[in-house]
Amino acid sequence: MRKSPLSLSPSQSVTPQLLYRQLAGHYLAAIQSNTLAPGERMPSVRDLMQQHQVSLSTALQALRYLEQDGWLEARPRSGYFVLPARRMALAEEPNLSTMPALMSAQYAGIHERVSGVIAQGHGASVTLDLSGASCAPELYAVEALKNAAIRTLRKQPQVLTSMMSHRGNPAFRQVLAKRSLAIGIKMAPEEVIVTHGCIEGINLALRAVAQAGDTVAVESPTYYGLLQVLESLGMRALEIPTSPRTGISIEALQLASQTYPDIKALVLVPNLQNPLGSIMPDEHKAQLVALCQEHGMALIEDDSYSGLVPETSSARALKSWDRSGNVIYCASLNKVLAPGMRLGWMAGGRWQARLEMLKFAHTRANEEWSQIAAADFMASAAYERHLRRLRDALRLQRARTADAIARHFPVGTRINVPDGGALLWVELPAQLSSKAVFESALKEGIKIAPGLMFSNSNRFNHFLRLSCGQPFSPRIEYGIKRLGEIVEDLLAGRVRVA
Amino acid sequence: MRKSPLSLSPSQSVTPQLLYRQLAGHYLAAIQSNTLAPGERMPSVRDLMQQHQVSLSTALQALRYLEQDGWLEARPRSGYFVLPARRMALAEEPNLSTMPALMSAQYAGIHERVSGVIAQGHGASVTLDLSGASCAPELYAVEALKNAAIRTLRKQPQVLTSMMSHRGNPAFRQVLAKRSLAIGIKMAPEEVIVTHGCIEGINLALRAVAQAGDTVAVESPTYYGLLQVLESLGMRALEIPTSPRTGISIEALQLASQTYPDIKALVLVPNLQNPLGSIMPDEHKAQLVALCQEHGMALIEDDSYSGLVPETSSARALKSWDRSGNVIYCASLNKVLAPGMRLGWMAGGRWQARLEMLKFAHTRANEEWSQIAAADFMASAAYERHLRRLRDALRLQRARTADAIARHFPVGTRINVPDGGALLWVELPAQLSSKAVFESALKEGIKIAPGLMFSNSNRFNHFLRLSCGQPFSPRIEYGIKRLGEIVEDLLAGRVRVA
Repeated sequence: MRKSPLSLSPSQSVTPQLLYRQLAGHYLAAIQSNTLAPGERMPSVRDLMQQHQVSLSTALQALRYLEQDGWLEARPRSGYFVLPARRMALAEEPNLSTMPALMSAQYAGIHERVSGVIAQGHGASVTLDLSGASCAPELYAVEALKNAAIRTLRKQPQVLTSMMSHRGNPAFRQVLAKRSLAIGIKMAPEEVIVTHGCIEGINLALRAVAQAGDTVAVESPTYYGLLQVLESLGMRALEIPTSPRTGISIEALQLASQTYPDIKALVLVPNLQNPLGSIMPDEHKAQLVALCQEHGMALIEDDSYSGLVPETSSARALKSWDRSGNVIYCASLNKVLAPGMRLGWMAGGRWQARLEMLKFAHTRANEEWSQIAAADFMASAAYERHLRRLRDALRLQRARTADAIARHFPVGTRINVPDGGALLWVELPAQLSSKAVFESALKEGIKIAPGLMFSNSNRFNHFLRLSCGQPFSPRIEYGIKRLGEIVEDLLAGRVRVA
Repeated sequence: MRKSPLSLSPSQSVTPQLLYRQLAGHYLAAIQSNTLAPGERMPSVRDLMQQHQVSLSTALQALRYLEQDGWLEARPRSGYFVLPARRMALAEEPNLSTMPALMSAQYAGIHERVSGVIAQGHGASVTLDLSGASCAPELYAVEALKNAAIRTLRKQPQVLTSMMSHRGNPAFRQVLAKRSLAIGIKMAPEEVIVTHGCIEGINLALRAVAQAGDTVAVESPTYYGLLQVLESLGMRALEIPTSPRTGISIEALQLASQTYPDIKALVLVPNLQNPLGSIMPDEHKAQLVALCQEHGMALIEDDSYSGLVPETSSARALKSWDRSGNVIYCASLNKVLAPGMRLGWMAGGRWQARLEMLKFAHTRANEEWSQIAAADFMASAAYERHLRRLRDALRLQRARTADAIARHFPVGTRINVPDGGALLWVELPAQLSSKAVFESALKEGIKIAPGLMFSNSNRFNHFLRLSCGQPFSPRIEYGIKRLGEIVEDLLAGRVRVA
């Protein structure tokens, strides 16, 4: 179990600030070691004051801290109770002391790793796939989309046989521009460039702002797709520590920009980061936009998930703080609207003209057919209803999957349940190899994404990314149980790894 | 008028081989100067023998040469008659003596040129667009495609909301592999990588075989889209003279590969080259594949038009001669099946694994929807019927457009009517600026593609590419007439160019 940075250390003289965190840490350790089990009642405020000789304010702060962090639940007139899932939270802040090792910008060597994993996955007969980032097809509005598509074909069959503008269908661009107001972006429909998913936008953005050999900062861990893109473009990836709660470490990025004054760009997912699920607080977002601007670092914002952020959080885009055109906004509808329509879009800031040229040179236009159908559906109230239903479904699926992991995985497993999205990032105990878990699981038809795919370093080799994008079912319960047993077996040395 | 390389030069001692060509050249000059007008009967074989003191064999060879070249038509039992369109043929062979100037590999600077032209085009209100390379929407099987698409949506609506393999839909890949047998390619469906049009294939192929700074050989003139791709990738374009009849000059390429031993790749369109419309003879194709292999030059074959090659010509793919995996085959369905479906595909030879990775990293999968609909239609007999109808329509449109140009453009205009496709390449007299023609025409709502877009050099500044992709109509007749008048006015200095 990790050495808690919050454990009480009464020998040191501490500020009141630190005191409540030490108190919280003390109880966190008790929760993590199961001394305080899920469902149990926490000592009252009065008890805490007496037992630890702290003020009312410190006792309250400690309880609220644990509540905010998801370890406790406040029940009116009953006090605080221990919650199940969060008993295994991930380290909240990235450990900056490990930074020097991370700070050597690497040419991504990810392809070998990732393609190895993917090839193994292809070879196997998979009965339960927990490796993807998309949600189950039935969680999307299949029927309404089908009808919109058929309407489009009936009304305008000639879109099949006509050339179209490479910037995209006007109605679709208008819907996108209008919807972006909700995340703070004001733009004209003409600024929207339609792309083949967010991934094409990221590719074009990187090509617009950097060249082969250049260094690009990314989150750590980060989506392996981004590392593959950097590798394919011959760019170096500089991994910046990223917190499962607040996203990229601004402090670490600042340090990095001092060490590497020539970082050409930063690519990140501010809302529901993949794989961590973190949502950056608005203050961090504002700081980040300013920092990148100040250091001449282009900011490439990957916004694939903001539609899955719950209404209680801010899904504001980094782009909304951009005053100088330094932010390239890239978005996708794959996760929120339909994984099979391959629709994405971007707004290029001061690189707009260059990006339009690159889009034209690379893939010309997107099919107009799907853009019109998507615009039709997205302009209706049905789209908002769909998003609400999807968020509700995912909230339940995250909770049930996390609960199953908590019940079936051995002590020492850590997990953070994010506020949105379909991904859980699981830290295995004792630096267990996720590759070994991946391989053993695959033999039983269960596919997961091992942590080693999410970094060029080996820092996340003992992590797993598990999808909760499918409605929870006995089959998933069984799969998680088997995964837990595989982890137990590996820990006990009962499985020989090839 | 160009100095004919075939004019009789009796002072020189000549081989019988050359004699018939000199005789043909003599009559070609007479045809070009209108001494022999379209519809007139040529001197008989007997007359030729007597007047020029040549053998029966030489006289016959000369007549057949002119016939094959499209200047004459043989009518049974009546003799040979002068044809209208070809009276203005382009220079048949590229002039190798101009090569040294062409032989300096340039970083494509095409973007400025092309985007200037495109921006002007966007600003104008266009009533007659002769600038594109696609055919009119109504020349495609809109109704059948619409029905196939609706069938797909009804049967498999979940393709809209499901992730798919990034290599493409199996049924579509099978249809493509099967149809390629007709152009001599034997491949497994698994070798097919589905792309967003041919242009994505070309981009990926170039990235697989070369890097920024590398030299890539291209045809001259060539499709401006290719020059833009090279520019966007930071590669140098080396333009190789290309004949309107037989395509790229093998001799020139051989010379080039001696001067530049480090040419990384050659990109070309062997069947119905854009803008020339040339179809490489099979012997040339075989030689070219061998030459590239020998010089370690990757051969990237752009096959966007082979479905438009008439049944009387060979549309065999370069790839069919490839024994070492040195040919990357890239194809498109935009021109033959449907311009709005954005479907292309490729087969990567020895770069297959790298190309699959690049495709995945850049745009993931294509939409499955359109692939299934396309496979449905292409597997039916209706597709072959559509292709025959399209070829017939284009044959008529080429002939009528060429005829209109012959009637309305001033003497000294040259044109070559290709055996297929929807493009005419027109050489203006007296090195007239096609940019000036473009600008004057645009003021009247007529859009054309000026020759300067098709090369980094200024060699084709006095050429126009005119589309005959739309059914010929009085509107087109009028447009061509106006273009002819604009050219006349510019020649006479009656228009001041800005």
